[in-house]
Amino acid sequence: MSKGLDHETLNENVKKVQYAVRGELYLRASELQKEGKKIIFTNVGNPHALGQKPLTFPRQVVALCQAPFLLDDPNVGLVFPADAIARAKHYLSLTSGGLGAYSDSRGLPGVRKEVAEFIERRDGYPSDPELIFLTDGASKGVMQILNSIIRGSSDGILVPVPQYPLYSAAISLYGGSLVPYYLEETANWGLDIKNLRQSVVQARSNGITPRAMVIINPGNPTGQCLSEANLKELLQFCYQENVVLMADEVYQQNIYQDERPFLSARKVLLDMGLPMSKEVQLVSFHTVSKGYWGECGQRGGYFEMTNIPPQTVDEIYKVASISLSPNVPGQIFLGLMVNPPKPGDISYLKFVQEGKSVLESLRRRAHIMTNGFNSCRNVVCNFTEGAMYSFPQIRLPPRAIEAAKKLGKVPDVFYCLKLLEATGISTVPGSGFGQKEGVFHLRTTILPAEEDMPAIMESFKKFNDEFMEQYEDHTGYSRM
Amino acid sequence: MSKGLDHETLNENVKKVQYAVRGELYLRASELQKEGKKIIFTNVGNPHALGQKPLTFPRQVVALCQAPFLLDDPNVGLVFPADAIARAKHYLSLTSGGLGAYSDSRGLPGVRKEVAEFIERRDGYPSDPELIFLTDGASKGVMQILNSIIRGSSDGILVPVPQYPLYSAAISLYGGSLVPYYLEETANWGLDIKNLRQSVVQARSNGITPRAMVIINPGNPTGQCLSEANLKELLQFCYQENVVLMADEVYQQNIYQDERPFLSARKVLLDMGLPMSKEVQLVSFHTVSKGYWGECGQRGGYFEMTNIPPQTVDEIYKVASISLSPNVPGQIFLGLMVNPPKPGDISYLKFVQEGKSVLESLRRRAHIMTNGFNSCRNVVCNFTEGAMYSFPQIRLPPRAIEAAKKLGKVPDVFYCLKLLEATGISTVPGSGFGQKEGVFHLRTTILPAEEDMPAIMESFKKFNDEFMEQYEDHTGYSRM
Repeated sequence: MSKGLDHETLNENVKKVQYAVRGELYLRASELQKEGKKIIFTNVGNPHALGQKPLTFPRQVVALCQAPFLLDDPNVGLVFPADAIARAKHYLSLTSGGLGAYSDSRGLPGVRKEVAEFIERRDGYPSDPELIFLTDGASKGVMQILNSIIRGSSDGILVPVPQYPLYSAAISLYGGSLVPYYLEETANWGLDIKNLRQSVVQARSNGITPRAMVIINPGNPTGQCLSEANLKELLQFCYQENVVLMADEVYQQNIYQDERPFLSARKVLLDMGLPMSKEVQLVSFHTVSKGYWGECGQRGGYFEMTNIPPQTVDEIYKVASISLSPNVPGQIFLGLMVNPPKPGDISYLKFVQEGKSVLESLRRRAHIMTNGFNSCRNVVCNFTEGAMYSFPQIRLPPRAIEAAKKLGKVPDVFYCLKLLEATGISTVPGSGFGQKEGVFHLRTTILPAEEDMPAIMESFKKFNDEFMEQYEDHTGYSRM
Repeated sequence: MSKGLDHETLNENVKKVQYAVRGELYLRASELQKEGKKIIFTNVGNPHALGQKPLTFPRQVVALCQAPFLLDDPNVGLVFPADAIARAKHYLSLTSGGLGAYSDSRGLPGVRKEVAEFIERRDGYPSDPELIFLTDGASKGVMQILNSIIRGSSDGILVPVPQYPLYSAAISLYGGSLVPYYLEETANWGLDIKNLRQSVVQARSNGITPRAMVIINPGNPTGQCLSEANLKELLQFCYQENVVLMADEVYQQNIYQDERPFLSARKVLLDMGLPMSKEVQLVSFHTVSKGYWGECGQRGGYFEMTNIPPQTVDEIYKVASISLSPNVPGQIFLGLMVNPPKPGDISYLKFVQEGKSVLESLRRRAHIMTNGFNSCRNVVCNFTEGAMYSFPQIRLPPRAIEAAKKLGKVPDVFYCLKLLEATGISTVPGSGFGQKEGVFHLRTTILPAEEDMPAIMESFKKFNDEFMEQYEDHTGYSRM
């Protein structure tokens, strides 16, 4: 007789989950690393793992919060600046017992207030701390909202394709249906509203009702920044279709061009005025893991709810209570991110310089990478306008596709595995994000150290061009 | 037309969740606190919120890990001891990029190895780090395992009643059925195996198949320590019934008597030998939130799997990957908990003395509280053998029950609300944990500062005895 945790008796939704970012490629890369091979992990947006240094000021503040006894130490001023000491005292005063005490399940009220003030400065509209919930990273918030919306397989969630696999995985886990809408690669991964409407018609004809729509802005894995016109169109769509908008805006600080600055879905919605500004249900997500912070391991994030009824907010609060509270150090990081040092503070100049240096380098790396990919045979790549990824299209020759099929591999998995074995570069195949039929991509982060970037791109080009040479049809030549 | 996050259209399982620990009583207490009333929060086991100081050594180590630039500062030795500096270097060497980098989704391999060594020292049997997953607190691990097991409402989870509401809440959220088995208050909250078997028969007759069984040892809210004989019986039961055992052992360091030391379910299982030791599926949970650590806000925990098939372990790994990684500082706390300072280390004596002082004081507080409750009119209370709670039975007079019903309140909620208004003591009504029909309890932690304890118990007694005076039947007197 089978047991509760035997594989055949597990929850089918758990088994259906696919999660490519840490899938076959990642597992093979980990094996190779164990065997002593040098691996360049570009599969996850994990900047510190690739050498990015943490910002000094926030780390000083959180270190002091962890060691509050230092605040009474006469030598503390020798190793910590006065403004970090003052900020640590401020955050400790917002807790009820320091970092070791559970906070309210929505997060510390004082930090939620700082988040609301940040949102107001950013968007020009007031924000209510009671509608902001802090989370252990943005992913946990996304999962909680999806779990609240999805009742069964006839509930559809509109997800951009290519998409970040958090969405497909969580939708599978909660038993809903993913309704893909394709981004237009030839229009720099823009959103085509006609395409979106077709997806809805298609879903309805399959008995699926779209109840929410995800946007990722700037895009992951596609790197585009949505224009104001695009955001207006899609908000209009959400209004007409009664669809909740889930705005994944975790890369809002990662912008590498000046034509299209980041605009929050919330600002655009409120700019559109009544009746829409009071009607469209919107949940917006942000994190300390990205931007010039990259504090992934600290797991700090928040979501803000707009036009969500109070009874629903109460239900979300109740479910958040089951796991008691998000981690408190991560909440402090979030407070520091939304309320950084100000001009005149002792640490201001150093903080600004550290952040600027990260972002400027990322902008240069975005260019190096896009140019590098576009110099390769059968590779075309849009510029990374924002976020942390490059998503080149790899035009695999028919013979490469056949070779992959013989091995029972998806063609882009075949390509990425060969790339990994040849160069140590660990990427994620485009099939893990979804792509149009017969078109192949890979995703890589733009995070390797700037000084390593030329060598990495050279190594990629050498592999790719040899691969293409090997698999392209040379029958023309052989006939000669 | 209704929208995706309107209350009436939410996932019904979300709406069904009940979570009393932060329910009506907690909300009312928070309101009163806002109005300026002094509240003694004894509703959650949150020691630092009630004044318990963090252990110095682990905080020093984690502070240094947060501020790695201090390791090169010539003044660091003025504020941190050498062994904390060495330990910080050790943990940083286990990360790939410090605390700001995501770890493997199962947690840092080096910390999982330290956990395995701790388990081996504790139980006398080797433990495999590949079967240990680190989590953001134990609750998250419990939720993940339940989500893996539960397929629908015909899947039953055996849960002790009174129970910790994490279990009832998570089972509702995932759409399973809670199958209660009652603990015996008159046998110091021991587990009666006949009662357990009756629960199974009852569940089966309702079309529910028990697939897992939860034990909480030491008990929450009941405070009992399970005897070896009890553990053997229930393991035998799990073997016969093909039921996964989920052993919530988060209070394993909180023991306040010497007759029944903590025994892990895993040790007892492996002691029982073949075939059981290779057959019973067991998942054991632990945390940094309890013990003499009480580092609730850091959200560090782990679960260890015994006799779980590798394919299932892979599925659990995949689902853990969706939210990328548990918070890394919490993982370091866990490493420090399972690998504390050793005799001869600079910080050893201070560390041991701090821990001992917490535990000895908790033991004294357990006595003060039990004795205090037992001195009250119509209150009887078992001694808190372990964990952090006291769970007195309140024998409510019929007129109090009537008065509650008139207000539409559950009788123990009525009592606890009156207690809160009169004294500021914020407890959780027994109905939030489950109790036998017509019997009433409350749960309080034993965590208020030892010096405040006599006054708290006096204030409780004054309220209780007046309440009983008010609601007891005095018709005998009035006839005189």
